[in-house]
Amino acid sequence: MPETIGFIGLGIMGQPMALNLAKAGHKLAVYNRTSGKTAALEAAGARVASSPADAVRDANIVIIIVSDSAAVEAVVTGKDGILETLRSGAIVIDSSTISPVVSRKMACLAASKGASWLDAAVTGSKHGAEKGELTFMIGGDRATFDNAMPILKQLGKKHIYCGLHGLGLSAKLAQNTIQATMVEVFCEGFVLATKAGVKPEVMLEIIQSSMARAGITDFKAPFIFKGDFTPYFPLKLMHKDLELAAEFGYAQGVPMPVLGAVKEVYMAAKAQGKGEQDYAAIVTFLEELAGVKVRT
Amino acid sequence: MPETIGFIGLGIMGQPMALNLAKAGHKLAVYNRTSGKTAALEAAGARVASSPADAVRDANIVIIIVSDSAAVEAVVTGKDGILETLRSGAIVIDSSTISPVVSRKMACLAASKGASWLDAAVTGSKHGAEKGELTFMIGGDRATFDNAMPILKQLGKKHIYCGLHGLGLSAKLAQNTIQATMVEVFCEGFVLATKAGVKPEVMLEIIQSSMARAGITDFKAPFIFKGDFTPYFPLKLMHKDLELAAEFGYAQGVPMPVLGAVKEVYMAAKAQGKGEQDYAAIVTFLEELAGVKVRT
Repeated sequence: MPETIGFIGLGIMGQPMALNLAKAGHKLAVYNRTSGKTAALEAAGARVASSPADAVRDANIVIIIVSDSAAVEAVVTGKDGILETLRSGAIVIDSSTISPVVSRKMACLAASKGASWLDAAVTGSKHGAEKGELTFMIGGDRATFDNAMPILKQLGKKHIYCGLHGLGLSAKLAQNTIQATMVEVFCEGFVLATKAGVKPEVMLEIIQSSMARAGITDFKAPFIFKGDFTPYFPLKLMHKDLELAAEFGYAQGVPMPVLGAVKEVYMAAKAQGKGEQDYAAIVTFLEELAGVKVRT
Repeated sequence: MPETIGFIGLGIMGQPMALNLAKAGHKLAVYNRTSGKTAALEAAGARVASSPADAVRDANIVIIIVSDSAAVEAVVTGKDGILETLRSGAIVIDSSTISPVVSRKMACLAASKGASWLDAAVTGSKHGAEKGELTFMIGGDRATFDNAMPILKQLGKKHIYCGLHGLGLSAKLAQNTIQATMVEVFCEGFVLATKAGVKPEVMLEIIQSSMARAGITDFKAPFIFKGDFTPYFPLKLMHKDLELAAEFGYAQGVPMPVLGAVKEVYMAAKAQGKGEQDYAAIVTFLEELAGVKVRT
C-alpha cells in the first residue's frame, strides 16, 4: 500500500534509501539540510520540501537519516522541525546513528504529539542501501515495529528487534565498535607483515585460510590494496560512532579499553584530513607512520 | 615414505600433531620438557627420548613446537640440545610461535650443522591440530619448503610459503594480532550491548547478519555464552604472541597503537589468573569490570 512519507537526510545512505521508496510508488516529500542533493529524488517524483516540518506535514511515515545527535535534535526540535507538524499516529523511523540517550528523548517528544518513534540504525553501507539489502537494528514498541515492517522491508533484507527505545542504537554502537576495530587491526597487521617482507596478497591468503576471516575485511582488502578510499562509509562518521560508543560505555560504567585506543586512531586520521575518505583509509595513517605501503 | 622424525613439544598442539604422524606410520622419537605427556605417543609406537639431542639423533625430520623463544633456544642450543646431534641434511620444522629474529638465529645455527630450518607457525588451534587441518605459514628456503611438504601435508590442509627465514612468523604475529583483537573487541561490544539491555543472542544475530561476521567469533560465541573456557588456545600464549608482535613492531619501526591496548588487556586478564583458560576468557575480565555477564 503506498504511504505518504516524509524523508529527511539525503546523504550516502539516505539518497539510495529514498530512491528505493520513490521507485516503490510511495508519495515522498524529501528534505536535506544542504541543497543540491534533491535532483535525483525530484526526477523520481518526490516533492522537495522547504523544511523538516514541511516534509512531514502530510506524512504517516517519517524517515530520518542524518549525521549525528545534534542534527537529529535540530530536525526534530529546531525551528521548522518536525515537531511543529508531526501528525498524531505517524511513525518516525530514525536510522541515524546517534546517542541512545538522545534518541530516547526524541521518542518522548514524538509521543507528546501522539506519534511513535523507532530507533532503526542500519548496517550494510552505501552498497546495501542501494540494493535495499540493509540490516536494521530496531528499538521501540513491538507494535510500532510490526506496523513499520512493510516500509522497512523495502529498505532492507533483515530487521532485528532489539527491545525498547534506544536498544537498536545500543546494538549498532557495539556492532560498529567491533567492525571499526576489525578494519583498524587488519591494517595494523598488514602494515607489520608488509614491512617485514610478507607480500600483502600472501598475508590475505593466510587470513582467508584462518578463522580471522571476516566479511568486512574481505570486502575492504581489494580497496586497501588499490589505495581506493572512495567513501562507502566516511571515516569521520565511523569516528563519530566510536565516540558515541565510548560516551555510551562511560554512561553505563562499561570500561572499553580497546575502543579507547581505536577511536583515537580514527580521530588522528581524521585530524590529518582523511575524514571524507572511506574509513579503510585508516591504513594510510598507519602506513605513513611505518613508512611502508600495503599495495599489490 | 616413512620418515625418522624427532618431535619436541607435546603440548596442546604438539600432542595431536605427533599422534597424527605416528598413526601415519613414521618412526617417531618424542621429547617433552615436563614428563607425563608421552603416554599416548608411547602407546602409538613412539620412542620416548631422554633429551632433545636424544630425540633427533637419527632423525631426518625434526619438528619443534614449544611455548616461546626461550624454550626454542633451550631445545636447540641448551645442554643436550638438538645442535649436539642434529644430522647434516636434516630439516628442522619449528612450529613454535617465537620472535622472527630468534628464529633467524636458530636457522643459522642449524645451517652450521648442515641442516635446514623452516619457521612454520600454525593456526587452527587444538581442533585443527587433531584433524590434521592446520594452516601453516612458512619461512625459509623454497627448496626446503618443497622437501618438507610430504610431512607438512600430514599435519595441515594449507601451507603458505611466505618467503625467507622469519617471514612465516612475521605473518603469524600479524595474524594473531588481528585474531586476538577481533575476539577482544567482540567481547567489548557484547558487554556494552548486554549492559544496555540487548540480549546476547540478538546481538549475535546482528553480527552474523553484518559484515562484522568472522570465523573466530562464530567459533568462540557459543563458548562465551556458556562461560566455557576450556583452552583451545590458552590466554597466556595469546598474550605472549601479542607481546612478540609488539616487540617485532618496535624492532621494525611499525607503530601499532591498537595492539598496544589489546596486549595490556590480555596481560591484565593473565595477571588475574586467567592465563590457563582459553583466550576467549578475556570476556570475563571485561564482564567483571562492567558488572554484567554475557550469558544466554
